[in-house]
Amino acid sequence: MHFELTREYLDKLIEGIQQQNIELVKSLTNELHPADIAEIINQVDKEHAQYIYLHLDKELAADVLVELEEDTREQFLNQLSSHEIATVFIDNMDSDDAADIIAELPGKKQDEVLSHITDVEQAGDIVDLLSYDEDTAGGLMATELISVNENWSVTTCLDEIRKQAEDVDEIYFVYVVDDSNVLKGTLPLKKLIIAPGKTLIKNICDDNIISVKTETSSEDVANIMEKYNLVALPVVDSIGRLKGRITIDDIVDVIKEEAEKDYQMISGISGDVEASDSIFRLTRARIPWLLIGLLGGVFGALVIGGFSEELRLYPEMAIFITLITAMGGNAGIQSSSIIVQGLANKSLALESTMKQLIKETSIALLNGVILSSILLIYNLLVKHSLPLTFSVSFALITVIIFASLFGTFIPLILNRLKIDPAVATGPFITTTNDVIGLFIYFYIGRYFYLLFT
Amino acid sequence: MHFELTREYLDKLIEGIQQQNIELVKSLTNELHPADIAEIINQVDKEHAQYIYLHLDKELAADVLVELEEDTREQFLNQLSSHEIATVFIDNMDSDDAADIIAELPGKKQDEVLSHITDVEQAGDIVDLLSYDEDTAGGLMATELISVNENWSVTTCLDEIRKQAEDVDEIYFVYVVDDSNVLKGTLPLKKLIIAPGKTLIKNICDDNIISVKTETSSEDVANIMEKYNLVALPVVDSIGRLKGRITIDDIVDVIKEEAEKDYQMISGISGDVEASDSIFRLTRARIPWLLIGLLGGVFGALVIGGFSEELRLYPEMAIFITLITAMGGNAGIQSSSIIVQGLANKSLALESTMKQLIKETSIALLNGVILSSILLIYNLLVKHSLPLTFSVSFALITVIIFASLFGTFIPLILNRLKIDPAVATGPFITTTNDVIGLFIYFYIGRYFYLLFT
Repeated sequence: MHFELTREYLDKLIEGIQQQNIELVKSLTNELHPADIAEIINQVDKEHAQYIYLHLDKELAADVLVELEEDTREQFLNQLSSHEIATVFIDNMDSDDAADIIAELPGKKQDEVLSHITDVEQAGDIVDLLSYDEDTAGGLMATELISVNENWSVTTCLDEIRKQAEDVDEIYFVYVVDDSNVLKGTLPLKKLIIAPGKTLIKNICDDNIISVKTETSSEDVANIMEKYNLVALPVVDSIGRLKGRITIDDIVDVIKEEAEKDYQMISGISGDVEASDSIFRLTRARIPWLLIGLLGGVFGALVIGGFSEELRLYPEMAIFITLITAMGGNAGIQSSSIIVQGLANKSLALESTMKQLIKETSIALLNGVILSSILLIYNLLVKHSLPLTFSVSFALITVIIFASLFGTFIPLILNRLKIDPAVATGPFITTTNDVIGLFIYFYIGRYFYLLFT
Repeated sequence: MHFELTREYLDKLIEGIQQQNIELVKSLTNELHPADIAEIINQVDKEHAQYIYLHLDKELAADVLVELEEDTREQFLNQLSSHEIATVFIDNMDSDDAADIIAELPGKKQDEVLSHITDVEQAGDIVDLLSYDEDTAGGLMATELISVNENWSVTTCLDEIRKQAEDVDEIYFVYVVDDSNVLKGTLPLKKLIIAPGKTLIKNICDDNIISVKTETSSEDVANIMEKYNLVALPVVDSIGRLKGRITIDDIVDVIKEEAEKDYQMISGISGDVEASDSIFRLTRARIPWLLIGLLGGVFGALVIGGFSEELRLYPEMAIFITLITAMGGNAGIQSSSIIVQGLANKSLALESTMKQLIKETSIALLNGVILSSILLIYNLLVKHSLPLTFSVSFALITVIIFASLFGTFIPLILNRLKIDPAVATGPFITTTNDVIGLFIYFYIGRYFYLLFT
């Protein structure tokens, strides 16, 4: 069905490499899918990876290169001359992959590689693609596509497709353009196969077409393809001329990356790391957020220190410090994460900030009342002092409401300022909530203890 | 390019509904893509939604039904008879969508609807599809596909495709089977268009084919399609007979849902909710985790209460309570989230648990030493007492190491037990880390205060 990477396979392969058994290594790898070889290369040591890679068939090596992780690819490319990169690899690639790989090279090497590309048209396409921001439709699209003129007949069209098809891996749609290359519609292959040979393309083409502009953001492209269940999406310039097409497999990567970014943000990890990365890299990805947490902890310590008079008079107040900060943190993250998701999938696009804040306040009030009542009953049962009992329950409602509002407001504000709202789910906000929660708790406590004495 | 839902559009539409202006409402909706109409219906009030829906063209209404959110769909379907559901909607749908919608109906209504479907073959396909678990390839696949016999010629094949194509929306691949319907390969449409008419299919078909079994989990299907950049994937039974095909747009939904599930887990929200849901629903989705947090807070209070003698003797210890619990929480979530992601994308598949634990301990030790040293210097500078200074730094290293190990171990164990490891990123673990962090802090504190006196 498909290749499954096992420990046994890897052991056999590594043994082959150590014995310099070229035939065995070749037989174990050359039949595999490029994605599988990339997976193997990402799993083994640097030296073994190099050995495997050097013994791949040239065309396969180009496909594998596209599938590798960025740092592994960089390492391989560093050992190759610009001439080799251009003729062995770039010439065998789709324009979008080629542009992505060239964009990763250092500036000087980029020009060298471009100058060595044999196919002038391909080189021109790559230069065009390099001019687009990588997070836009232009940066995602490939220029390889099949386009036909609306005034052709089905027969002419089929002949033309046979000519153009050599450059294109898969055909999902044929794009229909006018004499100025302005996109007029799509032609499902199905219709082309079914229609009689003399039919004019403009009479069978589907002109109810969804397209994006080259400057559309990759997030919007992902939303559109997802919403309309599209497999391929044409990209046009500002006057509607067909420039390229984006296929869904590239968008799946965008969707995964967006989700991983948000997930790593909320879990306090910076940079794109994986469990299989090095200890140093993983440490570096975690320490920034831990430092922010430490700073927050020190602020918290200053706040608690500032209330040392209260703690001396009513030492029992220390008991509920963690409860208050933990609940503030939980409620805040719940609110901000739901807003971040709502902003990402556009379901909040039409809601006003005020409406959203009122809604969050209601939810927080409801949750706060339920939780504070439970805590009140518990504290009465275990016979904590009345001032403590009332202050902690009262503080709990207040902290939950405050944290929810803060968790709602901050991502909405960040979004307005065109900053990624997911930042609001990171440790920065949790930490701020901790500090403010402590203030609320001790102020309310001070008030209740005075009230009851 | 594509429809953009604006406040102005919505206001105009709602005005039309209130004035019972059927023509206006129809003209505003009937030209739109089903996904756009579904978006509008999800945004407006129940009554307005019903008005819009009832005035859609019948075929469009079926397409819109598929795109609606589950609870809105349920509400519409409740008002229709089984006969209407079968003849107006199910008959116009692909088998996978039809099966999904029928599966949502109450048991008795399911049978009624099935008995009213006009196309017996379609009804049979739906019954077959209903027998698969919805989280497997069988539950995701559609039975509409184009298959041809390997012994046919290109010409016969094109004729057959013209016949079969009526039932299928889009053709991406033609599947090649033998006389027993066992999948032998795929035929890219491109090759079919290019090859001479008399060529035998078996000579041009691509037999290096990736397929999945009906019982493959939807997560594995998503991983395979993503890894190999597939647009469609054939599904076979245990002896290799072609049963259906899965298209990438269905998998995009699976990928999004998986990501959202993990995200909501880590942010302490249960159930599939959105910012636009009702206050009651949003409260219900949040309260379970807040209750766990409250329970954890009460345990924390018991721990702090248990060390009240220490707090009476050394009240300054209260100062760093939040710092210790917050840092434990942060470090724990970092570890568990990175393991959860590693497990999800299979990059950890070949690593041993022991190796992973040693790695996490190293990272935690490195982070712990850096952070504790910074805190030590700070505490020496602000002249906190030596016992406090040393116990908090020492506790910080210990808590970070402990929380990291716990955050690594728990998701790995859950995964072994076939429980979703993402549970380990929820408030349950953070809360446990809080409680254990407090123990560590006070025990270490007790020791250092005795040491220095």
